[in-house]
Amino acid sequence: MTTYTIKFLPHNREIKVNDGESLIRAAMEAGVHINASCGGEGVCGKCRVIVETGEVEGGLSEQLSQADREKGFRLACRSTITENVVVRVPVESAIDISVLSQHYVPRRTASIRQMDLNDLKEQGLFLPPVEKVYIELPEPDNQDHLPDVTRLVSHLKLHHDEHHLTVSLPVIRKIPDALRKDAFRVTATLARPVMDSGKTEIINVQSGDTTNRNYAIAMDIGTTTVFGQLIDLKSGEVMSEHGQFNGQISYGEDVISRIVFAEKEGGLERLHKMVLETINTIIGKIVRRAKVDPDDIAAITLAGNTTMTQLLLQINPRYIRRSPYVPASTLYPPIRAVDIGLDLRDHVTALVYPAVSSYVGGDIVAGVMGWGMYLDDRLTLFMDIGTNAEIVIGNRDWLACAACSAGPALEGGGIKFGMRAAKGAIEDFSLDPVTWEPMLMTIGSVRPKGICGSGVIIMTAVMFELGLINNLGKFNRDLATDRIREDNGVWEYVLAWAGETQIGRDIAFTEIDIENLIRAKGAIYSGCMTLLTEVGMGMQDIDRIILAGGFGSYVDLEKAITIGLLPEIDADKVTFIGNSSLLGAKMSSLTNRIRKDVVEATRSMTNFELSETPSYMDNYVAALFLPHTDMNQFPRLKERLARRRQPS
Amino acid sequence: MTTYTIKFLPHNREIKVNDGESLIRAAMEAGVHINASCGGEGVCGKCRVIVETGEVEGGLSEQLSQADREKGFRLACRSTITENVVVRVPVESAIDISVLSQHYVPRRTASIRQMDLNDLKEQGLFLPPVEKVYIELPEPDNQDHLPDVTRLVSHLKLHHDEHHLTVSLPVIRKIPDALRKDAFRVTATLARPVMDSGKTEIINVQSGDTTNRNYAIAMDIGTTTVFGQLIDLKSGEVMSEHGQFNGQISYGEDVISRIVFAEKEGGLERLHKMVLETINTIIGKIVRRAKVDPDDIAAITLAGNTTMTQLLLQINPRYIRRSPYVPASTLYPPIRAVDIGLDLRDHVTALVYPAVSSYVGGDIVAGVMGWGMYLDDRLTLFMDIGTNAEIVIGNRDWLACAACSAGPALEGGGIKFGMRAAKGAIEDFSLDPVTWEPMLMTIGSVRPKGICGSGVIIMTAVMFELGLINNLGKFNRDLATDRIREDNGVWEYVLAWAGETQIGRDIAFTEIDIENLIRAKGAIYSGCMTLLTEVGMGMQDIDRIILAGGFGSYVDLEKAITIGLLPEIDADKVTFIGNSSLLGAKMSSLTNRIRKDVVEATRSMTNFELSETPSYMDNYVAALFLPHTDMNQFPRLKERLARRRQPS
Repeated sequence: MTTYTIKFLPHNREIKVNDGESLIRAAMEAGVHINASCGGEGVCGKCRVIVETGEVEGGLSEQLSQADREKGFRLACRSTITENVVVRVPVESAIDISVLSQHYVPRRTASIRQMDLNDLKEQGLFLPPVEKVYIELPEPDNQDHLPDVTRLVSHLKLHHDEHHLTVSLPVIRKIPDALRKDAFRVTATLARPVMDSGKTEIINVQSGDTTNRNYAIAMDIGTTTVFGQLIDLKSGEVMSEHGQFNGQISYGEDVISRIVFAEKEGGLERLHKMVLETINTIIGKIVRRAKVDPDDIAAITLAGNTTMTQLLLQINPRYIRRSPYVPASTLYPPIRAVDIGLDLRDHVTALVYPAVSSYVGGDIVAGVMGWGMYLDDRLTLFMDIGTNAEIVIGNRDWLACAACSAGPALEGGGIKFGMRAAKGAIEDFSLDPVTWEPMLMTIGSVRPKGICGSGVIIMTAVMFELGLINNLGKFNRDLATDRIREDNGVWEYVLAWAGETQIGRDIAFTEIDIENLIRAKGAIYSGCMTLLTEVGMGMQDIDRIILAGGFGSYVDLEKAITIGLLPEIDADKVTFIGNSSLLGAKMSSLTNRIRKDVVEATRSMTNFELSETPSYMDNYVAALFLPHTDMNQFPRLKERLARRRQPS
Repeated sequence: MTTYTIKFLPHNREIKVNDGESLIRAAMEAGVHINASCGGEGVCGKCRVIVETGEVEGGLSEQLSQADREKGFRLACRSTITENVVVRVPVESAIDISVLSQHYVPRRTASIRQMDLNDLKEQGLFLPPVEKVYIELPEPDNQDHLPDVTRLVSHLKLHHDEHHLTVSLPVIRKIPDALRKDAFRVTATLARPVMDSGKTEIINVQSGDTTNRNYAIAMDIGTTTVFGQLIDLKSGEVMSEHGQFNGQISYGEDVISRIVFAEKEGGLERLHKMVLETINTIIGKIVRRAKVDPDDIAAITLAGNTTMTQLLLQINPRYIRRSPYVPASTLYPPIRAVDIGLDLRDHVTALVYPAVSSYVGGDIVAGVMGWGMYLDDRLTLFMDIGTNAEIVIGNRDWLACAACSAGPALEGGGIKFGMRAAKGAIEDFSLDPVTWEPMLMTIGSVRPKGICGSGVIIMTAVMFELGLINNLGKFNRDLATDRIREDNGVWEYVLAWAGETQIGRDIAFTEIDIENLIRAKGAIYSGCMTLLTEVGMGMQDIDRIILAGGFGSYVDLEKAITIGLLPEIDADKVTFIGNSSLLGAKMSSLTNRIRKDVVEATRSMTNFELSETPSYMDNYVAALFLPHTDMNQFPRLKERLARRRQPS
């Protein structure tokens, strides 16, 4: 993709952006503040800039006079980059350069990586749990009356070194006709055991040579969304994928409300049916899109949290939400896919990811396994942050995990104007440290409707760093701005005035919102601290961080460190792996090595119930500050704040 | 039961019979001929005897004058024994004593024996494939969050030395509530693997201690009838049993016609459904009768011939009837009973008896195993005789088997007046060697309707021994009796005149009937010979004979030897084991030893396809005589015939 360079003046700061990027987003990315409160819809007219060299596309508006236009004035939010340009931020939108240069921290997002298929192939580990073998059997005659199944099994034993084979009834039913359809030339699909001592099962027999058509499905069953991928087991490539909302969502947004519903008369069956419908819809779509014959799909690997897994398997989850929070099972045997209602052929094996505990489920284990964290020497912090944050810390020698009940603040819940990350949600924010005027970016560049999770983190970080709020999250009430005000006894900062919004009311960010955020980040950070404390280590020992899930994809790392959600670590040591549950399910489809290892890995993973771990409460209380009571845990931030607060 | 002694004069022969026995049957049993052709209904009036000492009950008839009655005349067929009596057979019904004394051979029936439960217990082999274990688990608390399944499995491992345990999904579903219903005190039902290296599966978990309620079902799936038994696995006793016609019978009487029907559109599904209905009806009855909780039934063992097994398992049997006669499989893995439609709880394991070939099926294997033939040093001939006769010969070192297509003659099929063994069927027969008048016994003691299988054998043997037919089965046309006649070019012997029958026609036994019988017995005898020839042995090497199935229960051993169906052997070396298939199914429910052994036993059992074994045709041709071309194979009979044919 073509990229262009934009130089911002008077900051004298350059940034490269892709062709077609909006100018205001480029400024935000470069850390250049431009007053803006309409989210980029072009109605507030505050984001005036002067294009000094080159031309942008658009940016003209009735709010700009003809004279201004001729001077090069454009609205940054309506301007699109199509060539190299030099842009000046005029005085009325700009801020004191000396302050700005201190404020500027390069924007950091985690690098995206997925475990590599080529690595697996090189290591000889591209060993799917289901394999196809083509065989040509001798035909029976008057001297050879071997039963069909024996003929097949004996041949595999003698000529393919396959021992300890089993065949289930549905396959036995198919064998006689399959053998005779193409002169006793058939392809057998073999499902490998987890343990080498186990038995290999012949799960399908097809006429002729079908070895070049062997597929599996990987499925992540999230509380909110379900994602599926169809995988070619010959190449290892994803052939099609699809995701959609979990059909259970109308029975409750989080796992607890699902469990409550499941306890009602018929509730379990209902939730089971809803998630099945979702999964089966996804299966139908990815199979049709990839244009494969369903008879060539041999396995499905499913990963979900403990509650989603129990609901899928129709196991009552009632004890998950009752102390002492015991799941029914953490390990599941291979299951026939049709036995749990999956719309697949009756030979398909369903492999369900094992869990560690009621709140560290198969989705997390899938992430740990799929990424290979359990094989790595480096001390890794794996986090999947949502309403519940799951944390795994460890390396190849040990693994410890915990679930933190963070509350919904990080997803925009429990925030006065909080909303899901949807169109109109404020997702990015900058603040003029002199005028205290905001720069807002909304999803879809429309007038703001509310604030999503990433916006909440960024606002808190920016406000804290610039001193709009203190380390307790309280506003500096002495600042000369009418945006800070008291409303019904609660102090707040007005992000957008009623006329600039879609909702016709002032959108504000309140001290209660900040309190909720601090509690959420405190729960997570102290969870990590507790795991490390319990093994005699500290945050400084962490070699890298892996962020899983939707959260990891949008969070601004520096801001997350500034509020004390993540420990201070170099950006290149942070990796975002996206949907780790889906990744783990996919990797299990590609290598049986993971299935062999996961039993041991989950068994050796020490689970901490934080509410019952004495050190947790101390760590939690210490984390209820921005960024933390102990500023020495954030040395770079400490230095930056110290510099900022000394006049330059 | 009280027994009485009857002395017959002038034979001076005594016999002991049970209270209430009919006098004419006592005479038949004693080898005393009394003319009788109405089957015992009292209408022909021929069976007049004189009760000289004591009294019989009944026996009076309008056909006896008052004078005769006062002289002690009674109709033998209407007289019941209620005390010791002396009975004279009058001259008109009797025969020359000297001939009679030669003719007399004590009636021989096989001794009935079943494998002994106490033997199993003494040998420490009373080890059912499903066992119950009561356990008291520690309850979870804040220090102990073990998942429910792990808690159970770990406890069994630590405290009951149970390793390699697996738990299937339906059981996992039950575990959470079962544990909490009675303070984590539960009973686990364990299904043992066939091989020690295999895994033990926890198939059920019940609250509290239910170890004294552990049941299994044994089921014989015959082509004609299905029998089931409910077995108490604690005591080993049969608690209830029931049998009924196989519901498939309306789609064909034999396996071939069932296979033909199964090949039609929807035929397999139909036959599968019909036998399931029969089995489920039987299950329902035996469970209700024994008043057990279905949740306490843990296993069902099913034995049937190869076709019945494939129809039950819904495996198309089409290749069974096509050369080279290959079955789909001979071994089946344990199957969940509900997966094949059995009306049992979903934890129940169904164990299906393995077969050897298309025509030596699980029913025969069950007999061989259930009786313990495969463990015995003695050379044993095991026979299950019906339309198809299956033969197994061998001992603990080797086993050979074959199926003979005998045709239906031994069951009364292909016989001019042949019929099933039902009311009105001539089942026993005696002949006056001077007058050539018959003595007929019918089932139910009613006027004859036809001849059943046992009648056919007895008639042929008696006629041959007394010289009414020669060793080719042809009538001696010179005898002074109007009962031997030619009808439409076929010679026959009239058993009952039209007026004496239920059908209003003469009932006769024809030379074609005898030819059919000779072919049937020839096929079976030569089958045995062939197996022995192939291993370099002869009939004289056989140490004992085991007769299985309905045939064994009614056949007169001496008569079967006389026609050359069975080799000449002492009666005490012949054992009738009844429904051997049901016996084998039951024994497998009592000891896992059989399941371990059966795999090896079936594998080492050499199956001969007789039609493709060159020596078979020679043996067959030699056997198409009464009793055989080689009379030296029947030395006692040879001597008896020699004596008879020399005037005394």
